[in-house]
Amino acid sequence: MLAEIITIGDEILIGQIIDTNSAWIAKEFNALGIQLHQITSVSDEASHIKDAVTKALMSNDIVLLTGGLGPTKDDITKQTLCELFGTRLVFDETAFENVKEIFGKRGFPILETNKAQAMLPENCTPLYNTCGTAPGMWFDIGDKIVASMPGVPYEMKAMMTESVLPRLKNQFKFPVIVHRTLQTAGAGESFIAEKIKDIESSLPKHIKLAYLPALGIVRLRLTGKGDDATLLNSEIDTYATLLLECLGNIVFGEGELSLAEHVCQLLKSKSKTLALAESCTGGYVSSLIVQVPGCSEYFMGSTVTYSYQAKEDVLDVKHETLTIHGAVSEPCVDEMLNGVIKRYGTDCAIAISGIAGPDGGTLDKPVGTIYIGVIVNEKKIIKRFQFEKNRIRNIERAAMSALNLLRLELL
Amino acid sequence: MLAEIITIGDEILIGQIIDTNSAWIAKEFNALGIQLHQITSVSDEASHIKDAVTKALMSNDIVLLTGGLGPTKDDITKQTLCELFGTRLVFDETAFENVKEIFGKRGFPILETNKAQAMLPENCTPLYNTCGTAPGMWFDIGDKIVASMPGVPYEMKAMMTESVLPRLKNQFKFPVIVHRTLQTAGAGESFIAEKIKDIESSLPKHIKLAYLPALGIVRLRLTGKGDDATLLNSEIDTYATLLLECLGNIVFGEGELSLAEHVCQLLKSKSKTLALAESCTGGYVSSLIVQVPGCSEYFMGSTVTYSYQAKEDVLDVKHETLTIHGAVSEPCVDEMLNGVIKRYGTDCAIAISGIAGPDGGTLDKPVGTIYIGVIVNEKKIIKRFQFEKNRIRNIERAAMSALNLLRLELL
Repeated sequence: MLAEIITIGDEILIGQIIDTNSAWIAKEFNALGIQLHQITSVSDEASHIKDAVTKALMSNDIVLLTGGLGPTKDDITKQTLCELFGTRLVFDETAFENVKEIFGKRGFPILETNKAQAMLPENCTPLYNTCGTAPGMWFDIGDKIVASMPGVPYEMKAMMTESVLPRLKNQFKFPVIVHRTLQTAGAGESFIAEKIKDIESSLPKHIKLAYLPALGIVRLRLTGKGDDATLLNSEIDTYATLLLECLGNIVFGEGELSLAEHVCQLLKSKSKTLALAESCTGGYVSSLIVQVPGCSEYFMGSTVTYSYQAKEDVLDVKHETLTIHGAVSEPCVDEMLNGVIKRYGTDCAIAISGIAGPDGGTLDKPVGTIYIGVIVNEKKIIKRFQFEKNRIRNIERAAMSALNLLRLELL
Repeated sequence: MLAEIITIGDEILIGQIIDTNSAWIAKEFNALGIQLHQITSVSDEASHIKDAVTKALMSNDIVLLTGGLGPTKDDITKQTLCELFGTRLVFDETAFENVKEIFGKRGFPILETNKAQAMLPENCTPLYNTCGTAPGMWFDIGDKIVASMPGVPYEMKAMMTESVLPRLKNQFKFPVIVHRTLQTAGAGESFIAEKIKDIESSLPKHIKLAYLPALGIVRLRLTGKGDDATLLNSEIDTYATLLLECLGNIVFGEGELSLAEHVCQLLKSKSKTLALAESCTGGYVSSLIVQVPGCSEYFMGSTVTYSYQAKEDVLDVKHETLTIHGAVSEPCVDEMLNGVIKRYGTDCAIAISGIAGPDGGTLDKPVGTIYIGVIVNEKKIIKRFQFEKNRIRNIERAAMSALNLLRLELL
């Protein structure tokens, strides 16, 4: 089962946007067992689009197009596909109802260009857009298929999930693919590889292990391919259990769960409340927690005390502590912890103070020196970390380290 | 002058990484006046690579390859190009010196696979890698060129900047291209288009205007193409001045400056200090400001008061205000502003309280209702915004709206 993605739009070819759609579709295809053979990005030009689709159909079963379905005159995908497949545009009532509904909600008048969005090639199956005005199209070309979707990522994702993937599953027979992903925090890729090398080398040929690293996080994905779903699931379970036993509390969860989401689940299940005192991370840890819906149940708030004065006024850090030890020190983080617990009255707290850079380092506290403290039920832990020179990466690494410290104390 | 980028690597086709290299190269090409005709992503497979390069050379003057130059056995670009161009690999002393130097620095022993990295096609001009061990290659194929570079973004970028772009400028004659970008905040694309439609329609053919929208921000980019740099610069300046006069304070800056950076510059130049009180944005506005190096000069801190209790305890919001009007209300934001100014003693403050979603909406305050207040030198402004249903987008839009309100008051 071979597939090609064709992304259409001058904005990709002039570097105005990064094509994130292809990677998203590629992941979905990979999970389903469809081999993505090529990704091609072409301009908003009829001859170029036709040429790309024709070539793609020569060597692929599935050709997905994104982009070029907007209401403006540079969006020509629909007309071009009509010419290529020898058909014409006809008015589609359901698509027009959708346009009217969306414009009605926004309180905009419907223009002639918007009405044109409801015109669709006569021989296609419409793929209705639940997130926007431009409908997608599904063409059966012999035993191959061409599907055209909007380029706006959330519209495309909804159309893939609601229409294209279910139709593909219905039309083609795929091998059984089983994935299981373990999420780890606080350990590097090579450390993990060394620890699990015996398990890794014992994997049978039809089960693969992938390392997917991000800042402070490594995801381990087991993928098995076969014909018998029950057998495959039990094999994958066996290897996942071996990995879990070997890695212990390095693993914090499974699937797509983020570290912040996991920490929030822990707080909720243990009925603990949390407040933060952030200096160099400047509210970033707090913003990660607030991204999790429903966090008001256990998250009371955060105090970003960026200045000496704010640390004294808001968190009652002693003036002498700052003058003797500096803000980037264990005693300061210790007092920040006490201050934030007192101020917010929570069971748990995190405090962070460091030198994010690019300037401000000294000989004994170079850029990237960050103290992180955690308190859970009066038990306090403060650690010194040494990161790198990049300000934004330092902020992100400090945030992940802080969440991981809290996680380990909550366990 | 037409070009194609071919990115090589299975990791792109299984969605493990997003191809950011192409967009970076596309921008560089666009700035230089090279028209990028197509981007093609192919697998680590010799026949596929050969086919893609052969096709690309049919319709392009410049073909750039990235990826497949690593030391492992799945990296086959070098061998494949040898086969395609009828040449063989020979040992390159300078490339080997580079490998040795890098391994020396890291304290690793040199293995046979690393020595293979110094083998290069006989007929290529080596492009030495200043950031890694894999050298790149430059092939002159008649009057066309093929250049192959590593896939690691920072290695590729260094090789482009140091070798490929200078060689291209030397070998080809490019038109003069002048860009100028205006950054706007607080107005939508269609509002701006309506406002500047007369200027837009008066643009000569060789000057184009592009709208580059992001959340709460629209960048307007003028691009002129011609032979005479002085003339082109003065034309672009004329149109930029017309746009600036027409758009007034919607424009906040030029070039790549972010809104947070601009607000930080304003605070610094006017010697004003800032503190924040954030509820639904949960520290996100604060984290944007703290990303700007040197912000400790004017940024005192932020108070994330996510719970009712924290609003009362930390910001002295009255209990009755919360019970009568709710946290998402003008009176609450008003008291949050007073509280944060009192707590941090700053000249300016922002306070934000809203319903980010996905739940928690009511009939008169649906999800996406967000109150934003700004105080600058005792002058207070509070506005109600109505955003959408997506939690993370609501947080981001609220942040941009808040920074823009503060900007307008600081002017």
